[in-house]
Amino acid sequence: MATWKNLDTLETFKALSEVKRVKLAEAMSGVEGAERVKKYSVPMAEGFSYNFAAKQVDDEVLNALKALAEEAQLAEKFEELYNGAVINTGENRLVLHQLTRGQLGNAVEADGVDKREFYVKQQARIAEFANKVHNGGITNAAGEKFTTVVQIGIGGSDLGPRAMYLALENWAKKNNTLKMKAQFISNVDPDDAAAVLNAVDVAHALFVLVSKSGTTLETLTNESFVKEALKKAGLDASKHMIAVTSETSPLAKSDDYLAAFFMDDYIGGRFSSTSAVGGAVLSLAFGPDVFAQFLEGAAAEDKLSANKNVMENPEMLDALIGVYERNVLGYPGTAVLPYSQALSRFPAHLQQLDMESNGKSVNRFGEPVDYPTGPVIFGEPGTNGQHSFYQLLHQGTDIVPLQFVGFRNSQIGTDIEIQGSTSQQKLCANVAAQIVAFACGKSDDNRNKNFEGGRPSSIIIGDSLTPKSLGALLAHFENKIMFQGFLWNVNSFDQEGVQLGKVLAKRVLAHETDGALKVYSDLLNI
Amino acid sequence: MATWKNLDTLETFKALSEVKRVKLAEAMSGVEGAERVKKYSVPMAEGFSYNFAAKQVDDEVLNALKALAEEAQLAEKFEELYNGAVINTGENRLVLHQLTRGQLGNAVEADGVDKREFYVKQQARIAEFANKVHNGGITNAAGEKFTTVVQIGIGGSDLGPRAMYLALENWAKKNNTLKMKAQFISNVDPDDAAAVLNAVDVAHALFVLVSKSGTTLETLTNESFVKEALKKAGLDASKHMIAVTSETSPLAKSDDYLAAFFMDDYIGGRFSSTSAVGGAVLSLAFGPDVFAQFLEGAAAEDKLSANKNVMENPEMLDALIGVYERNVLGYPGTAVLPYSQALSRFPAHLQQLDMESNGKSVNRFGEPVDYPTGPVIFGEPGTNGQHSFYQLLHQGTDIVPLQFVGFRNSQIGTDIEIQGSTSQQKLCANVAAQIVAFACGKSDDNRNKNFEGGRPSSIIIGDSLTPKSLGALLAHFENKIMFQGFLWNVNSFDQEGVQLGKVLAKRVLAHETDGALKVYSDLLNI
Repeated sequence: MATWKNLDTLETFKALSEVKRVKLAEAMSGVEGAERVKKYSVPMAEGFSYNFAAKQVDDEVLNALKALAEEAQLAEKFEELYNGAVINTGENRLVLHQLTRGQLGNAVEADGVDKREFYVKQQARIAEFANKVHNGGITNAAGEKFTTVVQIGIGGSDLGPRAMYLALENWAKKNNTLKMKAQFISNVDPDDAAAVLNAVDVAHALFVLVSKSGTTLETLTNESFVKEALKKAGLDASKHMIAVTSETSPLAKSDDYLAAFFMDDYIGGRFSSTSAVGGAVLSLAFGPDVFAQFLEGAAAEDKLSANKNVMENPEMLDALIGVYERNVLGYPGTAVLPYSQALSRFPAHLQQLDMESNGKSVNRFGEPVDYPTGPVIFGEPGTNGQHSFYQLLHQGTDIVPLQFVGFRNSQIGTDIEIQGSTSQQKLCANVAAQIVAFACGKSDDNRNKNFEGGRPSSIIIGDSLTPKSLGALLAHFENKIMFQGFLWNVNSFDQEGVQLGKVLAKRVLAHETDGALKVYSDLLNI
Repeated sequence: MATWKNLDTLETFKALSEVKRVKLAEAMSGVEGAERVKKYSVPMAEGFSYNFAAKQVDDEVLNALKALAEEAQLAEKFEELYNGAVINTGENRLVLHQLTRGQLGNAVEADGVDKREFYVKQQARIAEFANKVHNGGITNAAGEKFTTVVQIGIGGSDLGPRAMYLALENWAKKNNTLKMKAQFISNVDPDDAAAVLNAVDVAHALFVLVSKSGTTLETLTNESFVKEALKKAGLDASKHMIAVTSETSPLAKSDDYLAAFFMDDYIGGRFSSTSAVGGAVLSLAFGPDVFAQFLEGAAAEDKLSANKNVMENPEMLDALIGVYERNVLGYPGTAVLPYSQALSRFPAHLQQLDMESNGKSVNRFGEPVDYPTGPVIFGEPGTNGQHSFYQLLHQGTDIVPLQFVGFRNSQIGTDIEIQGSTSQQKLCANVAAQIVAFACGKSDDNRNKNFEGGRPSSIIIGDSLTPKSLGALLAHFENKIMFQGFLWNVNSFDQEGVQLGKVLAKRVLAHETDGALKVYSDLLNI
């Protein structure tokens, strides 16, 4: 059994703090800089590599990080996790999202069933259902094919699946595997559901209601909103709707749905893209084979995460460097900057994944910690961000560590050569240039045009964004965040911080408030 | 003439630092809390109010902030700005974006013309052109009406106009004033242009090429991309494209465009939504009258920003509180959280507006400053954010100041009552609940369920999101950021930090690199 200790009680963390700092601008210059870029790279699955040359590390720092990984027992903890230990102690639950895409270790039994079999079975049930929808075995009441799938969900039931759909939509069009267009309704703002319903041909739309507990306020409200619209259009809602939920939820056996597919309490919402939560909408949109490839890519990256050798484990390494930046170098925040328009909503998904998992100030035992934990995460695709917030990243008073992602090839393949280069080459040239600009800077006598450099970044480089590589990319970040939670000794799998707002909102709606809350409610005409 | 001094040299700033801190959780509780919410509110234009009760201020702090505003001569500096002083000293330029929507002070002459007349004339030229497009006076070669407008631009030519379009799209549909759907191409990623072109009926599309200098790499590349697609479709590109640029740019008098509309060097890209940059696409999409209302709302808020009394100037007050949080209380970052799905891209626009303006570490005279300036800005609409990153905001180790926006009414008006409340009421109940949950917290013996509170927020409350109120909301943030630049003594109107990356990217494309940059270029197959 691994031992869970606070980061600041580890001898190796103290040792890490005392290692000489790397002068990044210097280290990244000249021949030495070129050598670093070649050397400081770790292979990932699906043709990716994780290049950390522009991070403030050298062999001495890396050795200290390796020692930290060992003392913190990162590999052992992951092993316990995927073998079915109760890692989510606060909620007394197993943590099994990796099992939705492969068998990393021992068989895991819970609730009297083999969980891997359970997830495989759900995937197969979804595949069968999706195939029937695609080949006309399941249709609307008029016997016509469904053309659009609309996911109704919020948080983990929205951000991940939405980001994955957008990441693959153009790829699927290009590869003739876009079976149905997908839309998403998430916000309780009535304008969200109304706008989607106005834009969709409801007679040919299949709705996927996603709520693990079956009690999410926004999602149930939007379900009623959609049912009302279907009724108004003279349609039988139960013939247009499926549910993704847990077997114990009130939705599981309801006649209101064409079918119900299951996840369980061992899969946190933000980690549910590879479960039925992502599986239903993505299989309907792209076909079950594409979804299976996505899982394959995630499973391949999971395998690397299980490596005990830090230098062969890109997720563990990324996690360690992030903790070094946050807890030793003292940098707040991290920007995620994919040079791919298809990843436009990937940073929003990572924002939840990271901030909801590690934005905690008590450890796994409920004791306050004395060090910073999860940072603020934000980002937009490059090159757009360059014309937006990069000014602050280059010349602001805070140093913000950066995580770039780049691909050698575009998804659609339509391109144009201007002044000797394609748009894809321009895109790649920009990300290469940014890494060096941030790291090395450039001195100028006019201080306003001076770049100090020393601003750290890493880059994940891949061939192109496909279902498989997207799966690997997702698993990279999921597992990085898991390892960081181990290092900070927090429970990355609960989210007690969202509860109080829910309780107070209910009180407002029941008009059971006083004091400040009553006045705000009046101001907002509730 | 106002005197420009560093924040930390001001006596009133030192005094502010010494004022007793407000215990927010306590102050917001009970009867005192209710009184605060009523009292700490300032009216804005178009029915908005700026409520700062949940900020860590009291009368003593407010008095210190007032004194700071006076010593920093905020009102005088704004007056000099709108009367045409060279406030953008780095580039030796006037700063005239407020003049695009009204005459706040004296007439401003530059380049031999009255600038207010110049902006009004451009607006009128756009209106005339848009009306002709709408009534069929200007058509495609086949004599058919244009149905879609596609903006090609990046940074300020994209984020602001896109956020404004999305903010009003549903309102316009509801009010039968959506004349043309708008799409946007920004990224040099070839998949961005290819995906938009695949989705658009190019034969009936009018493209708006937006580049002040006429030299923006991404925009010119995407123009060629679009021209190629038009050519392939057998269309004459020059009959499908207009330009928005400066009169001195190479695009200004080109035969490649149906028409050209002008802005000038006195309008920074990120402040250009109310100039021709936003004017062309928004007038084409919604009609010139709607764009005129948007300007009216912005002008009304500008007027309030000119108030010398801080307590009647919501922008100045918001700016001062933000600087207090950043430079005295030491909070990094700020989250912008609109409870309105229509404002989905408003935070992304503010991210540029704020971070590109004030992410500087030298003052207006090119001297390094010794204090934090512009913070990281991020955000997503509520209630979505509640199910994502709010965990960290409630229970993380860093305190992140929050800026809420809420509306009493939805835009579309379609709603459903469930369990005694509409979706709009649920939306509003949630934002009210969040403010109080963040401020007051709730103690629990289980530390994992404990909320410390003391997390500050403000809220801008309005009736509904309309062209006028959107204008006011935009001007609020533009002017807040301007005042913060005055306080930090930085030049908020240049962006030298974006230059180095551009230079290095060109070098990569010319294959004139060595060292680390060469290796990265090889890894990315450039």
